[in-house]
Amino acid sequence: MLQFGKIAIIGAGNVSYTLCKLLKDKDIEPFCVFVRNESEAVKMRADLNVETVSDYEKVMLSDLAIIAVNDDAISEVASHLVDYKGLAVHTSGTRPSETLSEIERYGVFYPLQTMSKGREIAFDDVPILIYANMPEDLIRLRGFSAALSSKVEYCDDEQRKAVHLAAVYVSNFTDVMLEIGAKILKDNGLDLSMMRHLVKETMQKAFEMSPEKALTGPARRGDMETIENHMKMLEKYPEEQDIYKLLTNFILEKYHENEKL
Amino acid sequence: MLQFGKIAIIGAGNVSYTLCKLLKDKDIEPFCVFVRNESEAVKMRADLNVETVSDYEKVMLSDLAIIAVNDDAISEVASHLVDYKGLAVHTSGTRPSETLSEIERYGVFYPLQTMSKGREIAFDDVPILIYANMPEDLIRLRGFSAALSSKVEYCDDEQRKAVHLAAVYVSNFTDVMLEIGAKILKDNGLDLSMMRHLVKETMQKAFEMSPEKALTGPARRGDMETIENHMKMLEKYPEEQDIYKLLTNFILEKYHENEKL
Repeated sequence: MLQFGKIAIIGAGNVSYTLCKLLKDKDIEPFCVFVRNESEAVKMRADLNVETVSDYEKVMLSDLAIIAVNDDAISEVASHLVDYKGLAVHTSGTRPSETLSEIERYGVFYPLQTMSKGREIAFDDVPILIYANMPEDLIRLRGFSAALSSKVEYCDDEQRKAVHLAAVYVSNFTDVMLEIGAKILKDNGLDLSMMRHLVKETMQKAFEMSPEKALTGPARRGDMETIENHMKMLEKYPEEQDIYKLLTNFILEKYHENEKL
Repeated sequence: MLQFGKIAIIGAGNVSYTLCKLLKDKDIEPFCVFVRNESEAVKMRADLNVETVSDYEKVMLSDLAIIAVNDDAISEVASHLVDYKGLAVHTSGTRPSETLSEIERYGVFYPLQTMSKGREIAFDDVPILIYANMPEDLIRLRGFSAALSSKVEYCDDEQRKAVHLAAVYVSNFTDVMLEIGAKILKDNGLDLSMMRHLVKETMQKAFEMSPEKALTGPARRGDMETIENHMKMLEKYPEEQDIYKLLTNFILEKYHENEKL
């Protein structure tokens, strides 16, 4: 069976932390973790009981190197791995796999999830999107990923870029909508927590029916009186009003051609 | 104990359907359901096994009349209930309670949820926001609502309007974000379902931490290279690009004052 023996992880951020923890939970001991900054290395050893290194000597002896650093730092890390004989993968949603193309065997290991240090995630069904330039490595990488999640999918650079862009809408921008909702509620002596049930049902509906079929509300109904009232209430929040206007027109245009704010 | 005997429901839409079903599940038989349109009445009798009426004679004999009709139709219904001796409530998030003020005893019964016919909701913890012009009715309405949900809250007209506005952001607009995400994925041979885990975790994080603390992504990091790439990818979707630009600037302004699209 094609698989990896020694696994090195590079980085000390959210993704590196989450991966180290996950591997240890699965009884896969990371061969070493490369951390340049000594105080971060101290913290990581204390938190996760892993072996950290601060030069690439030991990394070069591994079979799989997972580069879990900021997008901007990937090239710099790759420049140290030019003679690497194992498979080097990065974890970025946006950078092409070719960022690593000076290394003989390269690929991508992209877990589709929002990760924060200190927040545990049930990783079992987090989609892991994988790519490798050599077919045998793709098989190895699939086997490795399948040990971590039940949802492993092949994804080329173009698709991964689309996934990352879509994730900005469905994750970052939905979060901003909750932020605005929370602000309006707070200014009226109310708390976002009252929306939890509504948000949960909205999301379930969208995934089970489809976002189009699940859509309700004044813009979907073409209820201009309510929309005008909302616009008035938003006069003290000019930026949030701009967002209301743009998104309401986006919906009206689709369902009520003749109405517009 | 202050409570209602006979409960009439007015309307044949999503809210009326959901309430009738819910009452029957709790072994509370609606006294009658007012449905003007005969073919809708036939359907409702067949679906829910309730007694429907098409004039207000029997409604006038009830103790609580729940007006679950379109916002625009509330006044018209109220005009028939001027001599009503029971408590008349509407179910609208946006209309003031005074829409019913020609009736002696009036109020609001607003379930904070998105409802569609044929889709069952676990109603037990749907917040029900209540208001009544007379203190004794408020107590009765609280008792009635508490039989349906564990989360009953008093809410005046101003607060309810704010709740409804916030709901547009956290429910309708988040749904639109999923719709855009789905479109981008579909055009790249991928399906929205791959985002389910990410969306679930995003929402949980936002409610458990706070939307501000939960926010990640390129705009939060000030990663202008990724943002510029996204803007390029969005050139073929001009409307979605406008939304990306506005929301990205909204985030940048807050965390990276000197950056702007």
